[in-house]
Amino acid sequence: MPHPNDPALRSFIDVGAASDFPIQNLPYGVFSTSASPTPRVGVAIGNAVLDLAVLESEGLLDLAAAQGVFAQASINAFMALGPKVWSQTRARISELLRHDNPELRDDAPLRARALVPMADAELHLPIAVAGYTDFYSSKEHATNVGVMFRGKDNALQPNWLHMPIAYNGRASTVVVSGTKVRRPHGQLKPPGAEVPSFAPCKRLDFELEMGVVIGQPSRIGEMLTESRAEGMIFGFVLLNDWSARDIQQWEYVPLGPFQAKAFATSISPWVVTREALEPFRVRGPKQDPTPLPYLQQAQPNNYDLELDVGLRAAQMNEAVPICRTNFKYMYWSSVQQLIHHASSGCAMNVGDLLGSGTISGPGKHQRGSLLEISWNGTEPVELASGIVRTFLEDGDSLVMRGWRQASGYRIGFGEVEGTILPAV
Amino acid sequence: MPHPNDPALRSFIDVGAASDFPIQNLPYGVFSTSASPTPRVGVAIGNAVLDLAVLESEGLLDLAAAQGVFAQASINAFMALGPKVWSQTRARISELLRHDNPELRDDAPLRARALVPMADAELHLPIAVAGYTDFYSSKEHATNVGVMFRGKDNALQPNWLHMPIAYNGRASTVVVSGTKVRRPHGQLKPPGAEVPSFAPCKRLDFELEMGVVIGQPSRIGEMLTESRAEGMIFGFVLLNDWSARDIQQWEYVPLGPFQAKAFATSISPWVVTREALEPFRVRGPKQDPTPLPYLQQAQPNNYDLELDVGLRAAQMNEAVPICRTNFKYMYWSSVQQLIHHASSGCAMNVGDLLGSGTISGPGKHQRGSLLEISWNGTEPVELASGIVRTFLEDGDSLVMRGWRQASGYRIGFGEVEGTILPAV
Repeated sequence: MPHPNDPALRSFIDVGAASDFPIQNLPYGVFSTSASPTPRVGVAIGNAVLDLAVLESEGLLDLAAAQGVFAQASINAFMALGPKVWSQTRARISELLRHDNPELRDDAPLRARALVPMADAELHLPIAVAGYTDFYSSKEHATNVGVMFRGKDNALQPNWLHMPIAYNGRASTVVVSGTKVRRPHGQLKPPGAEVPSFAPCKRLDFELEMGVVIGQPSRIGEMLTESRAEGMIFGFVLLNDWSARDIQQWEYVPLGPFQAKAFATSISPWVVTREALEPFRVRGPKQDPTPLPYLQQAQPNNYDLELDVGLRAAQMNEAVPICRTNFKYMYWSSVQQLIHHASSGCAMNVGDLLGSGTISGPGKHQRGSLLEISWNGTEPVELASGIVRTFLEDGDSLVMRGWRQASGYRIGFGEVEGTILPAV
Repeated sequence: MPHPNDPALRSFIDVGAASDFPIQNLPYGVFSTSASPTPRVGVAIGNAVLDLAVLESEGLLDLAAAQGVFAQASINAFMALGPKVWSQTRARISELLRHDNPELRDDAPLRARALVPMADAELHLPIAVAGYTDFYSSKEHATNVGVMFRGKDNALQPNWLHMPIAYNGRASTVVVSGTKVRRPHGQLKPPGAEVPSFAPCKRLDFELEMGVVIGQPSRIGEMLTESRAEGMIFGFVLLNDWSARDIQQWEYVPLGPFQAKAFATSISPWVVTREALEPFRVRGPKQDPTPLPYLQQAQPNNYDLELDVGLRAAQMNEAVPICRTNFKYMYWSSVQQLIHHASSGCAMNVGDLLGSGTISGPGKHQRGSLLEISWNGTEPVELASGIVRTFLEDGDSLVMRGWRQASGYRIGFGEVEGTILPAV
């Protein structure tokens, strides 16, 4: 049987060359339809969703002892089964979708039940988020922010090159793409103000990130090796770490961001598996100084994935590109992040979500936040004639995309979109 | 029917005058026994645990439509039923335990099934922790730390008097009293070191805190009033926010504590309800400057609760008192903390745990951490002849207690204990 990543594979389902979801991808999500409103697990294939709960109940997926893992509102139960089952299941789904396999292809009643047009599917949060952690692992991003607020000579904090810096975020407000985002209130104390006020955020921003989805737990007190950490990673999503810069500026000393990041974090509905991204693994930037032994990697743990961001004001018809960068620039890899996260003995759980941190690149067009793009508001961006932005305004829609073109197919994440609602 | 807080109430169960668990308390916990190893919900009464799963299955508790909420490994399902059910259930349990009610008292077979000697009960984590947030709301603690690290003139950060400062902690490592705590590894860079090393923490500390248990959810985008916030609070536990001071010192700029606090947080097994603490409500310290309107309180939201901390080295027979303070000193109340937590629109969940922050008091004997007690290691504490501490050593056992003596009875939390295991 060919490997599910084999570029020669074709599905009996028509998948356009520009589709993010060829048979080589098979990302997992949670969906419902108006005809069948109970959320369950599906896989994206072209412009369709394959209903895994139907396949499972038909006995077409061999999941050993596990039962009903796809008739659930998250992929957590499936992830808990572990990497061997992840691979076997993906191989079996690939087999069922191949152009030369009649099992599903020629069973019209089953196809009618198991294949749902993407346009008819409502997509839900794919994971029950156990914990949400946000890293700060792009050297270009950390440097840009440092230069802005501390000057060129002290751009990077002394600890930054020695460990993947992170904070715990708020799992309760992770939402799926398409969820509207309410402009938050918060305490603001702009420069020159004598006292703070409680008012709607005036410097609302996005952060372009990838999210790592943890699919296996670690025990309290357990430290992770590189291979153990890699094996715990189920897959990746696009992630928008919405940020209220003015709330953050006033609240973050000395315990870090709190309400500035707590109102919403948006992720893409499809979790692209680590296995599907295997062909795109690359070494990350050289790390100097050499990391401490517990953070050293033998494997290439970065991924060559194109990322872009578009912004559409309410009066515009189409989003305008404002950033085009690549996941491969990350200084600290997801594996290093996870190893560091558990290094104190911190237990990891199935469903933990690790934001990569804003992904900027070396170029000026590769900045992954409006804070950087507008250089702290000093360099407004013209989106269209007369439409200028420093930070996000009400009605703005922000769209992130991620993909990688391979020979003959393209692996993509779809998009993560969010539109800003005015403050209450 | 008398109110369950009535000081005149007595139980047919013998409760000593010094017991933390008279009929006026009735805290909720989760327990199992070797004879019946499935964890379920119980209430502490004197030296016994009342098995609520048994009472519920016998139809002795009227929980309307809810079924099986006590035959579970956490109190979350019960909390989700809301404040009216909390009150009704507590009143009914109080009634069943009264000295003059024969229902349970005279039913020997039922008593044998429903009452378990505390000594036979294994106590588990009482809540499924949805999110864990740690505040920093004692002015005395923040001032002590500030004086140590920034000097007297800049002790409090500019934002401290304007909002309850907090960070998101790690829910996955909240453990119940009695769980041994492994000394964590982490990156350390002591003063004078050229580069960091990865080694066992050398400055391991405790923090004396109370934990607020959130029993009702709020919606994303919802802001809370004082009465709404109060109604979401189910109860309180003792909380030890174990802290690795040397890890924290190197990692915390600019995003706050991460691995320094991620290895363990211990809580007491019994959740004392807000209702049981009602007689001990007091106004907190005067707040100057007056908080912004969203944080202003009409009610007294502090609690007059005695707290003490004992430390026992491995070679000692008994813990020695090292701190004696009171919950009433907190500058920001739990209600203000919760209001601020949701102020950006952050959704709160059933099972969220909010640490108060280290509770120090104005006196030198009222310092709630070894960092303060030993003044950053410069003033060692003598526990017994030849046994001196600046920070915690392997084998040390730390015990926190909380209680309030009323006329004729005492409401207590039991204890939260943890013993330090050597690093791996």
